[in-house]
Amino acid sequence: MLEKLDLKLKLSKKEYKALVTPLEYRLAALQRTFRERKIPLIIVFEGWKASGKSSCINRLMRAIDPRGFKVFSLDVPSREDTLRPYLWRYATKIPRAGYIAIFQRSWYKQVLADRIEGRLSQPVWSQAYDEIDAFERHLADSGHVIVKFFLHISQKEQAVRFRKMEEEPAEAWRITPESWEEHRKYDAYIEALEEMLVKTSTAEAPWTLVEAENHQFMRIKVFETLIHAMESAVEMNTIRCEREPVMGDPLDLNKYRTILMNSRSFLAKYTTRIPMDRKEYEARLAKRQKEVRELHHRMYMDRIGACLVFQGWDAAGKGGAIRRLVAPLDPRGFEVVTISAPTEIELAHHYLWRFWTRLPKAGHLTIFDRSWYGRVLVERIEGFCTRDDWQRAYQEINEFERMVSNFGMVIVKYWLHIDKDEQLLRFKDRENTPYKQWKITDEDWRNREKWEHYELAVADMIQKTSTAHAPWTVIEGNNKLFARIKIIETFIAAIRRVLDDTRPRPPLL
Amino acid sequence: MLEKLDLKLKLSKKEYKALVTPLEYRLAALQRTFRERKIPLIIVFEGWKASGKSSCINRLMRAIDPRGFKVFSLDVPSREDTLRPYLWRYATKIPRAGYIAIFQRSWYKQVLADRIEGRLSQPVWSQAYDEIDAFERHLADSGHVIVKFFLHISQKEQAVRFRKMEEEPAEAWRITPESWEEHRKYDAYIEALEEMLVKTSTAEAPWTLVEAENHQFMRIKVFETLIHAMESAVEMNTIRCEREPVMGDPLDLNKYRTILMNSRSFLAKYTTRIPMDRKEYEARLAKRQKEVRELHHRMYMDRIGACLVFQGWDAAGKGGAIRRLVAPLDPRGFEVVTISAPTEIELAHHYLWRFWTRLPKAGHLTIFDRSWYGRVLVERIEGFCTRDDWQRAYQEINEFERMVSNFGMVIVKYWLHIDKDEQLLRFKDRENTPYKQWKITDEDWRNREKWEHYELAVADMIQKTSTAHAPWTVIEGNNKLFARIKIIETFIAAIRRVLDDTRPRPPLL
Repeated sequence: MLEKLDLKLKLSKKEYKALVTPLEYRLAALQRTFRERKIPLIIVFEGWKASGKSSCINRLMRAIDPRGFKVFSLDVPSREDTLRPYLWRYATKIPRAGYIAIFQRSWYKQVLADRIEGRLSQPVWSQAYDEIDAFERHLADSGHVIVKFFLHISQKEQAVRFRKMEEEPAEAWRITPESWEEHRKYDAYIEALEEMLVKTSTAEAPWTLVEAENHQFMRIKVFETLIHAMESAVEMNTIRCEREPVMGDPLDLNKYRTILMNSRSFLAKYTTRIPMDRKEYEARLAKRQKEVRELHHRMYMDRIGACLVFQGWDAAGKGGAIRRLVAPLDPRGFEVVTISAPTEIELAHHYLWRFWTRLPKAGHLTIFDRSWYGRVLVERIEGFCTRDDWQRAYQEINEFERMVSNFGMVIVKYWLHIDKDEQLLRFKDRENTPYKQWKITDEDWRNREKWEHYELAVADMIQKTSTAHAPWTVIEGNNKLFARIKIIETFIAAIRRVLDDTRPRPPLL
Repeated sequence: MLEKLDLKLKLSKKEYKALVTPLEYRLAALQRTFRERKIPLIIVFEGWKASGKSSCINRLMRAIDPRGFKVFSLDVPSREDTLRPYLWRYATKIPRAGYIAIFQRSWYKQVLADRIEGRLSQPVWSQAYDEIDAFERHLADSGHVIVKFFLHISQKEQAVRFRKMEEEPAEAWRITPESWEEHRKYDAYIEALEEMLVKTSTAEAPWTLVEAENHQFMRIKVFETLIHAMESAVEMNTIRCEREPVMGDPLDLNKYRTILMNSRSFLAKYTTRIPMDRKEYEARLAKRQKEVRELHHRMYMDRIGACLVFQGWDAAGKGGAIRRLVAPLDPRGFEVVTISAPTEIELAHHYLWRFWTRLPKAGHLTIFDRSWYGRVLVERIEGFCTRDDWQRAYQEINEFERMVSNFGMVIVKYWLHIDKDEQLLRFKDRENTPYKQWKITDEDWRNREKWEHYELAVADMIQKTSTAHAPWTVIEGNNKLFARIKIIETFIAAIRRVLDDTRPRPPLL
């Protein structure tokens, strides 16, 4: 593929000057259109060392409004980065609607430099292709425009540029022994590059190979490609805006008997009130809490992170259960994240963004009181997203959790179940008990009216997203005491399984 | 995932009877709508042995018009199948527009039974996920509706059914020692199944898990799911039909300077008239033809298949070159396939279908005089497909060729290049030479007017689809004699590379 590029292509400085100004104007106008239409744009620059990534980005920056973009030069990962799944440091930096993120080096490092330099084992970089595919697809499917450039120069040209830089006092420090080492491995890189370009050139996020030996040609090609991609995106956006999206879940339950039966029966078996007296509860709770404290310490020492996801009916007892679970924990090692309606800035991002940003570090524990599952529950039922959105979300969520679990994090997911009568009793109790009144709102009553729709969505969710690496545990919640014990014991078992697993864990970079 | 299914779900025979008839009517009506709208439908049935796949399909068949569907029970591959890439026997059986194909067992065998039974090595079944992803995506993106069912029963229930079948004289033969062996491996299958269901449940081709212990429930769930998927597809189709697709290539070349320069310069270096006198030509040709004959025999013995793709300008000399290449070959071992405008039946299929059906067997050679590259050449330029279609095609073609090459076939692709003046000379020569007049038509003159557009499309094609496993060779065609020799020598080198490769080849099943 790369060998087919004509590296001799060039533009004179005069031609360049005549071309670049009109392109700058077009780009600036397109940036404004993107802003108005709320389209997020991601530009990726990969390429050989000294191929001109920075100079290209510099030139681009001069054309666009600086309030509308951010440049990320992500080379050596920070300490914070290495304690999170590989894609974390990119996923947390995606632009919001109408903004531009420019990545100088990107998630492709994993399948290029990290691979060639032996920083990653074969299973890790080959699974990286699945992760990259999922990551870019999530973004593209939700309307992000992704433009990827690879700046290509020959090995010979690279040597010339390295030597020239070594002679310039201001540049010499950039050329290290590692640069020359990379230079010598040019052919190994070419092979990995070919594989990468073929595997990840998709219709939604294609690579543009740029002949980068002549600066003028390179820059104009980058400008023109970007403009072409943005113009096509505006055209697609116009088409998309013309059609009325199907919001929420238009399914008429009564038309589909088996779905109705499935959703009704699925949760019914968890409505048993499993007996547990307070004395037994207290003894077991104390014992388990001690265990949790010890495990939490071992997690920290072994750098095992964990995400706990709590979902359940209103008044099912999530809050009380979480309190009992975290009571024995060292507060420096955990965080409870309460998820409610997204903020304006969260809404302007991909829906998984606010969860990416809240992932725990390796060795830490994050408890999500409600989570990314809102997409397939409340957002589905209330029509806060389109049918396409929530139907796609099952795969997206499975892939997201897979990335987290590939990194060695534990995911434990609870559905706290109570029956409809039990909820009524608890609602009334809340209304009648002064110090509980804050817990009950009109919204709770409104949600209750949609019980059957939630039953369906919950059954769907659990059946479609219970995976080996991130299984759901349904908790019989009618008896709160039993529920709390089962939650803690499930957590203990999951953590023990990982701590006792002697297989090698992926090393932190 | 599977453990979350409630296998106790059931419908009584009475309930079933009341439900099934209206569903049959709805299904029949939807079939007619699909026919009118020309939507192709693919239904996949996977599931445990004795889970009821046949009975389900039988019931379905009674509801729909038999002229509109075909059932494929694909279990043990035929000899013809094993000589082709794995997906060949499925890809050749996809339905045409408006028709239904029902697969009882499918391409998922590869990542299930073949994997568990050790018929395939780990690299093969793990690359199968990439192939399946590509295959289903190609179909979905071009408007195929894909509905996939997995019929689930417990291990215990399977034993009960096996024993019952063993007692029935008409059924007993179905239960073999292998069936019981498979039964004992239930847990190993469950693990592979989980992986498969998670990895291949995409938004466009999701799996539906069916509780299959109760026949009535199972059938109704299959009916309802299918109807729901078809209704959604009709709705989507309505939306799609409302928007005007962008046909062909709307790019204004003069607006994009670097693209213009690239496409002009790219081919320019192949316009040199490389000298070769007739004497040298004849000596070399004779020698090379002898080599080709020997290699063709070795290909047959070693079961190496090969696809040769010839593309080039009108009058570039494809025909003459092909004649010299095949002259020494045993006619039982090769075929020349000339691709012109698709027939009505070909047009009603996915565009790659007519090439899938023409792939050579292992050990054979197929020469494509024009090929699947029509999608990104004539179809792009003449607007025979939408912009989305041809832009998607680069990835589709790379993936298609990857599947062919994964199977161990050689792919050699030639672009026969001449310059515009040389073409004019040859056109005039054809017009003036009586026995050559049939070779020149008005269409050739019309194509010539679009020379610049073709230049662009050719540069794009070669740069985007020249891969390590299927590289392009551009042939300097101004001197016909040189061109013919270079074509044969390129072929010889490619075949030698494979014959001399001592790495183990995937075994024929």
